[in-house]
Amino acid sequence: MNTLEALNWRYATKKMNGKKVDEKTIDEILEAARLAPTSSGLQPFNVILIKSDELKQKIQPIAHGQTQIVDCSHLLVFAAWDNYTEERIKERFNQTRGERGLPDTAMADYENMLLNAYVPREAHINFEHAARQAYIGFGIAILAAANLQVDATPMEGFNNEALDELLGLNKLGLKSVTLLPIGYRDADNDWLVNLKKVRESKEKFVIEID
Amino acid sequence: MNTLEALNWRYATKKMNGKKVDEKTIDEILEAARLAPTSSGLQPFNVILIKSDELKQKIQPIAHGQTQIVDCSHLLVFAAWDNYTEERIKERFNQTRGERGLPDTAMADYENMLLNAYVPREAHINFEHAARQAYIGFGIAILAAANLQVDATPMEGFNNEALDELLGLNKLGLKSVTLLPIGYRDADNDWLVNLKKVRESKEKFVIEID
Repeated sequence: MNTLEALNWRYATKKMNGKKVDEKTIDEILEAARLAPTSSGLQPFNVILIKSDELKQKIQPIAHGQTQIVDCSHLLVFAAWDNYTEERIKERFNQTRGERGLPDTAMADYENMLLNAYVPREAHINFEHAARQAYIGFGIAILAAANLQVDATPMEGFNNEALDELLGLNKLGLKSVTLLPIGYRDADNDWLVNLKKVRESKEKFVIEID
Repeated sequence: MNTLEALNWRYATKKMNGKKVDEKTIDEILEAARLAPTSSGLQPFNVILIKSDELKQKIQPIAHGQTQIVDCSHLLVFAAWDNYTEERIKERFNQTRGERGLPDTAMADYENMLLNAYVPREAHINFEHAARQAYIGFGIAILAAANLQVDATPMEGFNNEALDELLGLNKLGLKSVTLLPIGYRDADNDWLVNLKKVRESKEKFVIEID
């Protein structure tokens, strides 16, 4: 199945059937998110992996009672850094220098440029920037799942603060931005599965300028 | 090539060789962005397609002189709605009802909920939300290109306002958020091509909570 077939196959699954997705497949979806590109390679987000039925049940009311939260196999939470800090930026550059065998002085100008631009900036602006990066990984994870013929429901509709509190994300310097239940569609009981996928026409979506 | 192979193959190409990507391949990448999911299906972004060398040359100085802007085959600009308006939201719902053969009254509660939530909200907050949706499509386009063995350089480093002015995006109610030059790597002259891809370890990136 190629990319377009996968994207046409997928949809925002409204009813899942509770079957488990094997760990190798989940690992591939997580790995796709991990390999996603981010601005300056700072990778300012994490994915929270939730398997426990008990925890999924606690999350369901925070997400408007949506049933995919409990009927999915694995629940992913995409969570962005709440701020860019000197420590976080330096840690990334140190890792990159280390893994590439570069001297401590390498990339110093670029690192300082980012430190000067990001660290003094208001936390909410930095968080918005980090959140956008998380959405790149989110998009890539959605397509990765579709390529593997696994269903996934992109979700923004939940109480972010309540979820952050429940999962203790504040203590990790993270704020949840999206949910992605992973599982299998219950095609017989999903009102959306047979409805036409609607998108803006190609002619309107792509604007050619010369 | 599967998803993980494609993601490991791709990198933020720093030097492209000027070769043209065929139109069918470009169409597939654009189609992937068009099929990307967005919040409530509002699809609040467009992709601007630029082929003209003259226009690419005008954009290069707006993007810190980066050479991929002129050495790419096609330049994509991801541009998000500057605001959610009643007209825009209603147009989407009307299109969905039309294509699904639903009566005019269908989905009215959901439509009204979005109208009440988004239309009175400040434009910059709505734009941030729209921008995040554009990043989903951006991520999916990046992976789609990699699946087709075409290079693409995700770019945020440019003067958004100057680009919006040059392309007349304000008049379209759009604001540029990212650039994606599409083309082929000039492997002999790209300093990044042989450097190790660095990402946070899987153990740190994925946080399992139970």
